[in-house]
Amino acid sequence: MDKLTLKKSDLKNRIRDIHDFPKQGIIFKDITTLLKDKAALKKSVDLLANKFKKEDIEFVVGVEARGFIFGAVLAYKLGAGFIPIRKKGKLPAKTQSVTYELEYGTDVLEIHEDALHEGSRVLIVDDLLATGGTIKAVADLVKAQKAIIAGVAFLVELKFLKGIQKLKDLPVYSVLKY
Amino acid sequence: MDKLTLKKSDLKNRIRDIHDFPKQGIIFKDITTLLKDKAALKKSVDLLANKFKKEDIEFVVGVEARGFIFGAVLAYKLGAGFIPIRKKGKLPAKTQSVTYELEYGTDVLEIHEDALHEGSRVLIVDDLLATGGTIKAVADLVKAQKAIIAGVAFLVELKFLKGIQKLKDLPVYSVLKY
Repeated sequence: MDKLTLKKSDLKNRIRDIHDFPKQGIIFKDITTLLKDKAALKKSVDLLANKFKKEDIEFVVGVEARGFIFGAVLAYKLGAGFIPIRKKGKLPAKTQSVTYELEYGTDVLEIHEDALHEGSRVLIVDDLLATGGTIKAVADLVKAQKAIIAGVAFLVELKFLKGIQKLKDLPVYSVLKY
Repeated sequence: MDKLTLKKSDLKNRIRDIHDFPKQGIIFKDITTLLKDKAALKKSVDLLANKFKKEDIEFVVGVEARGFIFGAVLAYKLGAGFIPIRKKGKLPAKTQSVTYELEYGTDVLEIHEDALHEGSRVLIVDDLLATGGTIKAVADLVKAQKAIIAGVAFLVELKFLKGIQKLKDLPVYSVLKY
C-alpha cells in the first residue's frame, strides 16, 4: 500500500467530535476537518463514486446545505446532472413540496416540479444519516416524480439512531458507520 | 468540433430566466437547469478548473448554500481541500465571523477559526456575482486568516450590478457574463 494513499479506516481520524453541539448532551460529528483534507476528500468521493458507477445514474439529488457538497461532486464524477432540494421559498421555479417531522415541529423541502422524469435513475446523497427523517422526505419527493431511487449515499451513518429503518427497501450505502 | 461537446456559448441556453423572483421586478438567473444537464455541468466545472489548475490551490472556499455546489466539485477536481463558509450558528467548532450589509439590514457569515493558515493559496467560489457584498465578506474572512486569495470564481456575473467594483485587486473569473 502506497503510504500516500489513504485507507478507508483513516477517514474516521479526519472527523472530529464536537461536544454539546447543536445543544447540550449531543456529540456532533464534524466533517469539515475531513473536507479540508484533500486526500480524505478525494478518498471519500472515490469510495462513494465507485459504489454507484455501474448504476447508470442520470441525476444526483442533494439536500440543502451540506448535501450539496458530496452531491455535486458525485454528479460530476458519475457524469450525471445535479438536482438541488431546498428549503421552502429558495427554488425560483414551480416546485413540489413535502412536509416532514422534526424533533419539535415540522419543516418543508422543495424540488422543482420539472427536475426529474419518469424512470430517471437517481442517486440521493447527503453527508450524514441520523434519524433519517430528512432523507425519507427527499425520497418521497423523488418518488412523486416517478423516478427510480438507484441508491442513497452517505459519508457517515450514526447507526444508534436507526435512521436506516425509515429507509428500508432503499439501497443505502454509508462510507463510515458509528 | 465534436457535436457532443458543448461550447461555452451553449451554457447560457441552459440557464433560465425566472421573472419576479425573489420579488417583483427582478429577473432571476436560474442555474438549476444548467446543473441538471450533465454535459453543461461538466463543461462549466472544466472551464472553471482549467482557469485555476496552475494556481496551486490548497483550499477552495465555498459559501452556503449554492456556493457549496461548484466549490466542492472544484476542490475535488483541483486536488484541494474544501472549506465551507456558513451562516451564523451552523458551524460546530470555534469560528470567526464577519457582518455585512444587505439591501435591508445585515447578515453574518462564519468560518472555522482553524480552517486556513498563513500563506494558504485559496480559491473562493460562488455560483453568481451580483452586488458582490457576500463575496467581499468572504474575502475578508479569508484575509483575516492570512491566506492568499489566488482566485475568485463564478459561473455567472451580472455585470450591470457592478459587483466587480467591490472585489477590485482580486483575480476574478466568471464563465458567463450578462
